[in-house]
Amino acid sequence: MSLEGTYDTNNVFARILRGEIPAAQVMADEVAVAFMDAFPQAEGHTLVVPRYPARNLFELPVELIGPYMERVQRVAIAVRAAFSPEGIILSQFNGTPAGQTVFHLHFHIIPRWSDRPLGGHGSGMADPAVLAERAARVRAALGA
Amino acid sequence: MSLEGTYDTNNVFARILRGEIPAAQVMADEVAVAFMDAFPQAEGHTLVVPRYPARNLFELPVELIGPYMERVQRVAIAVRAAFSPEGIILSQFNGTPAGQTVFHLHFHIIPRWSDRPLGGHGSGMADPAVLAERAARVRAALGA
Repeated sequence: MSLEGTYDTNNVFARILRGEIPAAQVMADEVAVAFMDAFPQAEGHTLVVPRYPARNLFELPVELIGPYMERVQRVAIAVRAAFSPEGIILSQFNGTPAGQTVFHLHFHIIPRWSDRPLGGHGSGMADPAVLAERAARVRAALGA
Repeated sequence: MSLEGTYDTNNVFARILRGEIPAAQVMADEVAVAFMDAFPQAEGHTLVVPRYPARNLFELPVELIGPYMERVQRVAIAVRAAFSPEGIILSQFNGTPAGQTVFHLHFHIIPRWSDRPLGGHGSGMADPAVLAERAARVRAALGA
């Protein structure tokens, strides 16, 4: 899907936001929801999704950028505390040619270690019990 | 370099911010400066750098996240308008194991086309005249 188009209210993140699909949730407030990526590229791979129905960065109203990115920073701090990685990648893909697969805006927070290769994007689905345990570690780091 | 450490006031982006090193600049205000990546992974690869001396996302005070990310969004909109890519990647690396090479916080804005492979990070230095022409296109899109 290109950068043009209309928001699909049944995309998987919209369904998670509505509670129709389970997710290993780490935080939720009036601005954003964060949960473990079900297809993690690394231990602790977490997604932060704004509640606002934007397909991509270009559709998020400018007045929501600050509140949304404050949540992204806060969750990244908690992911760092929970998994003690040597590095953290933030990435956000707009459009299929950029690697976007779910057309609701989201930031990836991906821990990195120099001795562990980065997994492919969406290369394998994680065990829900493993994701639940990791989510609990991030929630603890958030003080939630 | 890990996530720990101290800010090096002579890193290349600090020197660009002080005007000691030239850059193909697209915008500058009290919060951030944006310029073309000298080692572009794609046509239109642009960096947005906060003036605040943070090595990474974790060192930017939360009250600066919103103003900084508003500039990132604004520049991404202009990069999209200037180069008409099919997609755009946003990425931000924290620590050497995550791919960070300059230890001053920055977001990459990288246009993507389905028929063009993504270049390696820092794989080759661009012709300054080419970067100047691209910067002029982004400035025009910004209305600057």
